[in-house]
Amino acid sequence: METVSGKDLQNRILVFSGLGNRVLAEEIATFLGVPLSPTLIRKFTNDNYYVQLGTSVRGKDVFVVQPISPPCSDNLMQLFFMLDIARGAGANSIHAVIPYYSYARSDKKDAPRISIGARLIADLVVAAGATHVITMTLHSAQVHGFFSVPTDHLTAHSVFVRYFKEKIPDMNNVVVVSPDIGHAKRALKLAKALGVPAAAGEKRRLSDNRVIIDGIMGEVRGKRVLLVDDEIATGGTIAEVVEYLRGLDVTQVSVLGTHGIFAGDAVERLNKVPEIEEIIVTNTVDIPPERRPRQLKVLSVAHIFGEVIRRNVMGESVGALFEFWPMPDDQGW
Amino acid sequence: METVSGKDLQNRILVFSGLGNRVLAEEIATFLGVPLSPTLIRKFTNDNYYVQLGTSVRGKDVFVVQPISPPCSDNLMQLFFMLDIARGAGANSIHAVIPYYSYARSDKKDAPRISIGARLIADLVVAAGATHVITMTLHSAQVHGFFSVPTDHLTAHSVFVRYFKEKIPDMNNVVVVSPDIGHAKRALKLAKALGVPAAAGEKRRLSDNRVIIDGIMGEVRGKRVLLVDDEIATGGTIAEVVEYLRGLDVTQVSVLGTHGIFAGDAVERLNKVPEIEEIIVTNTVDIPPERRPRQLKVLSVAHIFGEVIRRNVMGESVGALFEFWPMPDDQGW
Amino acid sequence: METVSGKDLQNRILVFSGLGNRVLAEEIATFLGVPLSPTLIRKFTNDNYYVQLGTSVRGKDVFVVQPISPPCSDNLMQLFFMLDIARGAGANSIHAVIPYYSYARSDKKDAPRISIGARLIADLVVAAGATHVITMTLHSAQVHGFFSVPTDHLTAHSVFVRYFKEKIPDMNNVVVVSPDIGHAKRALKLAKALGVPAAAGEKRRLSDNRVIIDGIMGEVRGKRVLLVDDEIATGGTIAEVVEYLRGLDVTQVSVLGTHGIFAGDAVERLNKVPEIEEIIVTNTVDIPPERRPRQLKVLSVAHIFGEVIRRNVMGESVGALFEFWPMPDDQGW
Amino acid sequence: METVSGKDLQNRILVFSGLGNRVLAEEIATFLGVPLSPTLIRKFTNDNYYVQLGTSVRGKDVFVVQPISPPCSDNLMQLFFMLDIARGAGANSIHAVIPYYSYARSDKKDAPRISIGARLIADLVVAAGATHVITMTLHSAQVHGFFSVPTDHLTAHSVFVRYFKEKIPDMNNVVVVSPDIGHAKRALKLAKALGVPAAAGEKRRLSDNRVIIDGIMGEVRGKRVLLVDDEIATGGTIAEVVEYLRGLDVTQVSVLGTHGIFAGDAVERLNKVPEIEEIIVTNTVDIPPERRPRQLKVLSVAHIFGEVIRRNVMGESVGALFEFWPMPDDQGW
Amino acid sequence: METVSGKDLQNRILVFSGLGNRVLAEEIATFLGVPLSPTLIRKFTNDNYYVQLGTSVRGKDVFVVQPISPPCSDNLMQLFFMLDIARGAGANSIHAVIPYYSYARSDKKDAPRISIGARLIADLVVAAGATHVITMTLHSAQVHGFFSVPTDHLTAHSVFVRYFKEKIPDMNNVVVVSPDIGHAKRALKLAKALGVPAAAGEKRRLSDNRVIIDGIMGEVRGKRVLLVDDEIATGGTIAEVVEYLRGLDVTQVSVLGTHGIFAGDAVERLNKVPEIEEIIVTNTVDIPPERRPRQLKVLSVAHIFGEVIRRNVMGESVGALFEFWPMPDDQGW
Amino acid sequence: METVSGKDLQNRILVFSGLGNRVLAEEIATFLGVPLSPTLIRKFTNDNYYVQLGTSVRGKDVFVVQPISPPCSDNLMQLFFMLDIARGAGANSIHAVIPYYSYARSDKKDAPRISIGARLIADLVVAAGATHVITMTLHSAQVHGFFSVPTDHLTAHSVFVRYFKEKIPDMNNVVVVSPDIGHAKRALKLAKALGVPAAAGEKRRLSDNRVIIDGIMGEVRGKRVLLVDDEIATGGTIAEVVEYLRGLDVTQVSVLGTHGIFAGDAVERLNKVPEIEEIIVTNTVDIPPERRPRQLKVLSVAHIFGEVIRRNVMGESVGALFEFWPMPDDQGW
Repeated sequence: METVSGKDLQNRILVFSGLGNRVLAEEIATFLGVPLSPTLIRKFTNDNYYVQLGTSVRGKDVFVVQPISPPCSDNLMQLFFMLDIARGAGANSIHAVIPYYSYARSDKKDAPRISIGARLIADLVVAAGATHVITMTLHSAQVHGFFSVPTDHLTAHSVFVRYFKEKIPDMNNVVVVSPDIGHAKRALKLAKALGVPAAAGEKRRLSDNRVIIDGIMGEVRGKRVLLVDDEIATGGTIAEVVEYLRGLDVTQVSVLGTHGIFAGDAVERLNKVPEIEEIIVTNTVDIPPERRPRQLKVLSVAHIFGEVIRRNVMGESVGALFEFWPMPDDQGW
Repeated sequence: METVSGKDLQNRILVFSGLGNRVLAEEIATFLGVPLSPTLIRKFTNDNYYVQLGTSVRGKDVFVVQPISPPCSDNLMQLFFMLDIARGAGANSIHAVIPYYSYARSDKKDAPRISIGARLIADLVVAAGATHVITMTLHSAQVHGFFSVPTDHLTAHSVFVRYFKEKIPDMNNVVVVSPDIGHAKRALKLAKALGVPAAAGEKRRLSDNRVIIDGIMGEVRGKRVLLVDDEIATGGTIAEVVEYLRGLDVTQVSVLGTHGIFAGDAVERLNKVPEIEEIIVTNTVDIPPERRPRQLKVLSVAHIFGEVIRRNVMGESVGALFEFWPMPDDQGW
Repeated sequence: METVSGKDLQNRILVFSGLGNRVLAEEIATFLGVPLSPTLIRKFTNDNYYVQLGTSVRGKDVFVVQPISPPCSDNLMQLFFMLDIARGAGANSIHAVIPYYSYARSDKKDAPRISIGARLIADLVVAAGATHVITMTLHSAQVHGFFSVPTDHLTAHSVFVRYFKEKIPDMNNVVVVSPDIGHAKRALKLAKALGVPAAAGEKRRLSDNRVIIDGIMGEVRGKRVLLVDDEIATGGTIAEVVEYLRGLDVTQVSVLGTHGIFAGDAVERLNKVPEIEEIIVTNTVDIPPERRPRQLKVLSVAHIFGEVIRRNVMGESVGALFEFWPMPDDQGW
Repeated sequence: METVSGKDLQNRILVFSGLGNRVLAEEIATFLGVPLSPTLIRKFTNDNYYVQLGTSVRGKDVFVVQPISPPCSDNLMQLFFMLDIARGAGANSIHAVIPYYSYARSDKKDAPRISIGARLIADLVVAAGATHVITMTLHSAQVHGFFSVPTDHLTAHSVFVRYFKEKIPDMNNVVVVSPDIGHAKRALKLAKALGVPAAAGEKRRLSDNRVIIDGIMGEVRGKRVLLVDDEIATGGTIAEVVEYLRGLDVTQVSVLGTHGIFAGDAVERLNKVPEIEEIIVTNTVDIPPERRPRQLKVLSVAHIFGEVIRRNVMGESVGALFEFWPMPDDQGW
Repeated sequence: METVSGKDLQNRILVFSGLGNRVLAEEIATFLGVPLSPTLIRKFTNDNYYVQLGTSVRGKDVFVVQPISPPCSDNLMQLFFMLDIARGAGANSIHAVIPYYSYARSDKKDAPRISIGARLIADLVVAAGATHVITMTLHSAQVHGFFSVPTDHLTAHSVFVRYFKEKIPDMNNVVVVSPDIGHAKRALKLAKALGVPAAAGEKRRLSDNRVIIDGIMGEVRGKRVLLVDDEIATGGTIAEVVEYLRGLDVTQVSVLGTHGIFAGDAVERLNKVPEIEEIIVTNTVDIPPERRPRQLKVLSVAHIFGEVIRRNVMGESVGALFEFWPMPDDQGW
Repeated sequence: METVSGKDLQNRILVFSGLGNRVLAEEIATFLGVPLSPTLIRKFTNDNYYVQLGTSVRGKDVFVVQPISPPCSDNLMQLFFMLDIARGAGANSIHAVIPYYSYARSDKKDAPRISIGARLIADLVVAAGATHVITMTLHSAQVHGFFSVPTDHLTAHSVFVRYFKEKIPDMNNVVVVSPDIGHAKRALKLAKALGVPAAAGEKRRLSDNRVIIDGIMGEVRGKRVLLVDDEIATGGTIAEVVEYLRGLDVTQVSVLGTHGIFAGDAVERLNKVPEIEEIIVTNTVDIPPERRPRQLKVLSVAHIFGEVIRRNVMGESVGALFEFWPMPDDQGW
């Protein structure tokens, strides 16, 4: 990974990390040519957090890297503290870098007396002091609008495209499949970039971790499938889709997800599916060894975060890095 | 339409209307058993608005009915003025009743340096004084989360279900079709309520008013089609889908849309499509005679708005009227 | 018009324009030595705005030029969108340059249940993202206080003074007349700068576009009159005053107004008044050819806006350009 | 003064007073049929305020009566404390009743780097906890728009009209004079109500307490003059106008002002002017005996404040009590 | 415990509980004569919360009971969700009942670049929707001022006084000891109520869970000691003080703390101290069996919370229940 | 006092002063190498303030120096005006430098229906425009958390330590005494820095200016006493403590207080106490000659304020100047 140079940048910015994903934070800092600034994170005996930033932030542009990955409540609280400290200590600007914004799934009110959690957390992040948010691949694009401060919504699209263009020279028999009609846009975009057709499952959710696939819209029989989702949690959806595909003579499946959680018995479940050749995720979430399925391959997105930080500080356009910047031929004007 | 009784309710509420849809406002007021309160809306010679509410609002619960239908900017400005007046004149609570929230389509940042218009307008509605919002069938469910005040997001679902159950006793050959995979949830819900299958078009948008249908996921050949969309603007999408369906031996199409705009040459375009038996919309938008296609049928949703107002004031649960309240068998817990 | 130089300035600022007055915006940009940045402003078929700024604003000082001239609601909505976009796209500061703030006339509550429109619009401009406002010749000076962000209230006074000093070498027989006692301050200031006496009409407003002049306080018989108002809308007031002056043997009238609207049948009405030699307005409003009375002369104020922008960015005092900066001999301390 | 009855009202409201004008507060409370609730106001030895409200305010509508009369800073601070206490102690609504809002004179930016004090104080009153403001005869009507909470702007007009209709049966020779063209509206309104002509002085302000009258627009020679101003501070303007009127054979002057301050050597100055028959003010300000000129007559406005409070709590329209409610024949629609 | 009656109260209020302390919430609800309303609290497989309130809250006064006891981050997050839901679902008022506000210990900035956690959490509680806070025995009284909404700060004082008056008829040899000079006020208040002397330790904190007692100010030799603290976390301070007291011939110690956490090896440590006869805490925190030292006695404060809720809703004064309401003879005026 | 150099600093900052303590403001400006910018502060005849800043603040970092010393309400009002002007005139940042924040004593709610004055004033300071606060030795450390903007809480500790190390070479017989157990931390810190023991009085407050000393915890008999308090108001506490010490054979007392008010008959009272050798305060408050006791010695803290300003503007860490930065051996981690 190439290091950005530029004394000016390095005098202005500080990168801090909570306990959520220090490895990614280190990579981002390295890309920017600065050290990761030290952070002290402890709990008092009454389980309250005590957080201290280890470097003076007065007048600096402060970037706090913290995904909302499990343990989510603790990771959020650390983020709130780090943002508040930067505000109270006179930072020039305060950027919440949230590679995985898990609450994006709580994006609508589909039952009475529930919270639109993605909006609540967005409001709390701002109340805690964030003046800017950087995140990647929100479950739905609309969640962007929940933030009341400028927000950069990045995509790992380019990383996946590059990977498959190298890996599969002949795309003749390939199809990109989205498990869910309701979120098929991301799969369509990948299909278009690879020059292959797309299909989508008719997914019905029975509960948080039980879904049924009622059918597949589009032609998949006998093809090599790239199965695309935004996040892989229990692997239940993936397993269901592959089972359905099995009945359609599909034997070769690559699973792609920006965010890899592998919660519950995901590892066990995915390890057992023979058709899955590989599972490709990015490093937005730090996956401990025991939660890594055998087929796992992790691609780094640190350079994307690093580049958007660099452009923010340098006052350059960041649009090209965004999740929903359309393909040129999508634009009607 | 039955009139709600209840002296207490009638002493507490006032219903006002802008110029957007006075007919609907009248119907809602009638449902609630109150007169529609007078509003004076003029323009000065410099094209500035002069708005006056005709009844003292001090201590009252004020409901301002105004869809953001064309002319949108003028209708919005009237809404802002009416809300601001109610606030300044000491209303107890101020409810923006926006039957058609057209800006819901601007729900994400899919190009650089654009606004998420649905969030901007939501913020302005609140800045102008709304303490509560009531709306119907937002283009995407997430837009609910753009409002920083309590928001009731209603659905016309029950009206459409009742209509078709009466109209088509034998549903054997019926299929519900969504023109767009990305918004197929609403069609699936209707299909489920009618006990029929669903299908979805692979819509590609070339520009605001030009789309191409690349295919249909699901079985539709030779069936009687209920084509469902949230709003019908130029009719371009509808016409494209029907043309595609024609190739699949479909000869009988009912078009459903909560919001009927019929902008541009929609009337001419839709009038020319022989397969379209009827076009069913609700009265969230006031459609002038010259913008009504020959097949148009308008169903009233005034009782849904009236009932949610009644329950709000009476402190009763309103969940059952909501857009995204799931079917009982959707709930996993 | 001389162009300001200064690389630093030109690297920091961007000037955008809505559809309100692109000519003025161009002139301001030229004064500042920068190109007018491109803006895409379209309407969707449902009459919603789609607005896009054509240049990256990240870290820039963004100036959005847009008068609230007819069509006022549309022009306001464009302004709201442009401000919101600049905020969401990470501008350093966001300046609403509103050469003609028409809603300033709605500055008090002189009837029950009306809005103080000038305050409402000021709040919406700030809610949409403005961090600073630049405007000219508000109908009343107090409207300045309606804005909750720093506001520069400019005057075209210097432009009018220079014009008349050149045009009328001998001011012996000249009198400056205000149509309205309630807003005579501006006329007094011009009279003092020209070294001539002032007079004021006793105007009684019958309706928005009908006034009666009950009398003139001050000596005007047989004099050459400079008739001063802040804006010229229908020309009704002007015509009434001139008719009254006719009875006092006045045969030569110059009409001055900062903002020229010429709404309704203003052109026809003003064209018919023989005593009116010329009508002098500034270019705060873009007057289409068909709305220009025969006597019209337009003076540019682009350099005043340009200079205040330059001083804002450069951190220089701007007081000398303000509407209400008093004459030295007005200051009592 | 008649006492309002109504158990409900009396259970809901509490009236508190600072040290500004306890007599008026007592009268308002009496009108409403409630006792004035006790307030403890002390200063610590370090000159800090210690304020305590003497009655539980939980769930009550709290009205705090306090003019911003001298000592203005202390009276303001008391007001801030009383509002904040009511908020912190759980009042249902908090009403700042400010009979004399002296800072209304600081209503525009007529010099560089000054504050629009009337806006600043309005913001602080709201920041301290006021949810509603009631005031009387603001120096300019626009100041109403400086408040971001609902504000009732009352007038003493009816009190003056009644007084003069009783006192002067034959109004033939009467003229109402405003010292200042810029604020002649109030005088015109009184003149119209009494059926007499109006005139206005051309006042030039040399300093805060020195003005020059350059002339009078309108016919006053030999008439009986009602000289109307919003507040009487040093009496300097009054004295100057009367001196000018003396040259026009005026020998009988009644001076009217809503707010009587009589600061500096006002008493001495006014006592010396033989033409002044009487000086009529209201009791918005508590005038100590040593500051009362010999011709002083004080009319009570407690019933106006009491009535507006009653109507606010009872949810009745209050428009008829407002400063700027126009005469019926002023309304053009 | 006596049950409050009052149909009106019971129609207006709803009591909800997170997972923090359902037993206390049940007791409070019972005191108020209402059932504890159901709450569904789940975690998704990605460790995000899914919270649903089980009863319609529209128009109700909602009381959410949740101490910030371990697991603190999860308990906080549940609280945020419950408050946000109540807001979004149209509650009339939203009361965060936080019996144990653990973050009150983070009340000052005694190191660089730390957060004043008690202020941060207070701001987040308000951002999440609380319109009122009820809490008990904050670590320092000043934390009350961190909340920007009305806050009732209760005390368990009356419960402790009643307990000891019953238990120890002869107080002759008793002394109340505070471990820390800096927080001796609470001990002094108890001492005064029991009519006994007080003493205070000179505590020096080495780390979060290690302190040293340098001495005791006041006479304790051979006495029966009531050792008072606001919370008992690891018991380290208690153990250190008792060890010091042992050297002063103290053999009989009762330990009192409003909040009992018993974290880490507190149970083991306290069980080993023979001088400790009993450890008396309240039920603000739900202590699981395995964390209860052998000498533990828990006193209920549910009636205090219940009574303050009742008075809030009924609009009665609640002062007598407050932590810092002074003894009558403390008041100097 | 050494002058800081640095052209950059001097181009960016402006120092203004109200009437509170111009001498200190001058010293701070001198330290920073800039002139004190002129401020015009007048009162109108109606006792309203008229304030004008004498230098253009556009784009500057503005520091307004004003203690809340008597006359407190007037000094606060001046501060509000200066902050508001800086905001309205386009300052880059606005720093309220409040050397003596007297309202810090009102830090808790120890009686019903009082205000937490320190929070109220903090909110008003921010509402008036402050974006940053610099203050010194707040009565309690928690008051820091009342400010919603970044706040630097400075200490005069270093000044007192240096003074006594020079003055008393042999500290063998010295003891530092705090009059009040509840605020003994500050005395302990000084004792530790001087390497001497500490003691604390058991102070009971009868009223604002009457206290009783019930005893002294710690060994003081016959020692040389340094009596430490945060502010010296009436001297009543000091006199009581010294009287008590007299009974313990103490004959030599130095009194230290950061803030010297000397209100009421403080001078007379302190002059009469023979044991008081000297009274050492800082210049946070400007003490007029007639309020200076004979033993007074004033130490300057201008360099501390100057240095924190310099570091703020230069983006350097300021922690070392803070009140509550702990001694190295206080830190447990």
